[in-house]
Amino acid sequence: MSISSFHPPQRTLMGPGPSDVSDRVLQAMARPTVGHLDPSFIGMMDETKQLLQYVFQTKNELTFAVSAPGSAGMECCFANLIEPGDKVIVCQNGVFGGRMKENVERCGGVAVMVQDDWGKAVDASKLEDALKANPDACIVAFVHAETSTGAQSDAKTLVNLGHQYDCLVIVDAVTSLVGTPLLVDEWGIDAIYSGSQKCLSSSPGLSPVSFSQRAADKIKARTTKVQSWFLDLNLVMGYWSGDGKRAYHHTAPVNCLYGLHEALVIVQEEGLENAWARHHANHLLLRNGLEAMGINFIVAEQDRLPQLNAVTIPEGVNDADVRSRLLTEHDLEIGAGLGALAGNVWRIGLMGHASSQKNVDFCLHSLRAVLG
Amino acid sequence: MSISSFHPPQRTLMGPGPSDVSDRVLQAMARPTVGHLDPSFIGMMDETKQLLQYVFQTKNELTFAVSAPGSAGMECCFANLIEPGDKVIVCQNGVFGGRMKENVERCGGVAVMVQDDWGKAVDASKLEDALKANPDACIVAFVHAETSTGAQSDAKTLVNLGHQYDCLVIVDAVTSLVGTPLLVDEWGIDAIYSGSQKCLSSSPGLSPVSFSQRAADKIKARTTKVQSWFLDLNLVMGYWSGDGKRAYHHTAPVNCLYGLHEALVIVQEEGLENAWARHHANHLLLRNGLEAMGINFIVAEQDRLPQLNAVTIPEGVNDADVRSRLLTEHDLEIGAGLGALAGNVWRIGLMGHASSQKNVDFCLHSLRAVLG
Repeated sequence: MSISSFHPPQRTLMGPGPSDVSDRVLQAMARPTVGHLDPSFIGMMDETKQLLQYVFQTKNELTFAVSAPGSAGMECCFANLIEPGDKVIVCQNGVFGGRMKENVERCGGVAVMVQDDWGKAVDASKLEDALKANPDACIVAFVHAETSTGAQSDAKTLVNLGHQYDCLVIVDAVTSLVGTPLLVDEWGIDAIYSGSQKCLSSSPGLSPVSFSQRAADKIKARTTKVQSWFLDLNLVMGYWSGDGKRAYHHTAPVNCLYGLHEALVIVQEEGLENAWARHHANHLLLRNGLEAMGINFIVAEQDRLPQLNAVTIPEGVNDADVRSRLLTEHDLEIGAGLGALAGNVWRIGLMGHASSQKNVDFCLHSLRAVLG
Repeated sequence: MSISSFHPPQRTLMGPGPSDVSDRVLQAMARPTVGHLDPSFIGMMDETKQLLQYVFQTKNELTFAVSAPGSAGMECCFANLIEPGDKVIVCQNGVFGGRMKENVERCGGVAVMVQDDWGKAVDASKLEDALKANPDACIVAFVHAETSTGAQSDAKTLVNLGHQYDCLVIVDAVTSLVGTPLLVDEWGIDAIYSGSQKCLSSSPGLSPVSFSQRAADKIKARTTKVQSWFLDLNLVMGYWSGDGKRAYHHTAPVNCLYGLHEALVIVQEEGLENAWARHHANHLLLRNGLEAMGINFIVAEQDRLPQLNAVTIPEGVNDADVRSRLLTEHDLEIGAGLGALAGNVWRIGLMGHASSQKNVDFCLHSLRAVLG
């Protein structure tokens, strides 16, 4: 056996994530590793927390990055907030609502599913019916931006409904954060998780999370231990909390956090509102170009995510063949359909650093070249 | 708020990990991000698996890197192998045996603790007594290289004992892998986890693991779901398995895996036996220098880990003050004591890339300068 160093190709990443990572972020990741309790690193963690509070638009003290991908961020929210027997209403309109159900059940909770068609937004009236029918429910969970379908739900209304029925509300913002308006405090979200590799355009592997005081209080008042030692916020907070001495819990992914910090600095430089506007403008450019080619969106216009464009594969076109040619002939990655939509749709991402007019032009040009 | 890019200081990392990361590994992490299902990336994953099989000295098919730090690797082993009610014998001789107990209990298992003094190796006769007294135990777990004390246990003997009593054996090799002989197949280890940031000298954030066929069979035959969706090997394997189509499970930490791949290539270039010998030789150099200064080891000579040197803090010396001066005046990190040993010992790491004669000389020189 003799294996050599790996030199990846230079792709343009316009799938459902990871998105293109800028040179600034890549270079930040290559800076010298320091210890996870080094004073310089603790200072960087404090800044990362402030920057995460900014992009989440929250003052939540319990705001940090889980040392693992978005799936672990999801599990962190469910494992900390659910105690055995808790009833949780899960709104599903795509793949990730199904993953929420798995999490609820594996944490010993009881999941009540509210189903909407894939590609549609979550229907608030169905949620209200479920809340009325389940007065013992204590948590509501839904996906703000369904990465599997490109549909956006009205988070503000859904959170408000959950609160009216005295539930805490968990929101999946893996794909929405920085790509589309998201106001954690104004909307009253109790627990939220995202990923580093979507509209933040950092490398995959970290999951920004934030918890309201109400959620933090519920976690502190648990009568059972959180089933995951690694994700137990009562322990993790000894390391990430802003006051006094930091206690070792696990070894933080130092260089990945350098990358996330730099990605957040870049968002701060642009301004969150400007980032939202850029994602929207580039989405319109892409939409115009795709529609001119006769390619149509699966989501109704008012519910579309600007950063994740799910479109129907034209009839007679071989899905895998087109994606493979885009990759090999143009070094361009677009996403396949996921779950029930596999084979029927493409998912074209315009996330973070990848959301640019240049990329829109390149994608349209490449698609035209391959489709002939 | 206006936060700038973070530029860490250039430290020499001679604590309990993370260890110094070489420029080759840092530069690998800065290569362009590709998709987690990109054919080039799948090829790199296959190579990473082969290289991990080499450093673990195993042919285990179920060998890969968990997408999170070593603590999650530990949890991956316990959560997959324990079903509610399973009795697990945990040998504790430091901090990490205690973490194993937490994992057993949070997975619904019953932990039977076998205690040895901190700084001593695990006593095989005590384990045998516990196995005789608990014929219903089905798993034995111990730490090969206790990072909190610098003691090494006789893994071969302990695994053999576990098998005699029909138990599967889980081994913590976070600090031992690549630093000291470790032969997974020859010793018959059933489940093992390590960390990327110790003797592999990659950036923290990944946990190499390997499972024997017997362990894989137990996981496949579970009657209950693994409580963690993120760590469920029945699902993770759809992504990491070598045959056929890779199924999306979670988004892999692409750039971190570039770093791990490069770190493994470096070990392969040096040769595993040479790496073990280098760690041993540099340990002897450090030992001679420390003993000449009147600084003594807390572990008996035959049980010492070459890569983690725990020594008694000389009388009258202020622990925190010395470590702080080493850091600020010499950019040198050594480790504090952990748990019961906090304030009484220093832990000097000679791990991976940091295990060099140059670092030994530098550490001894810096210590002499600060101790005066």
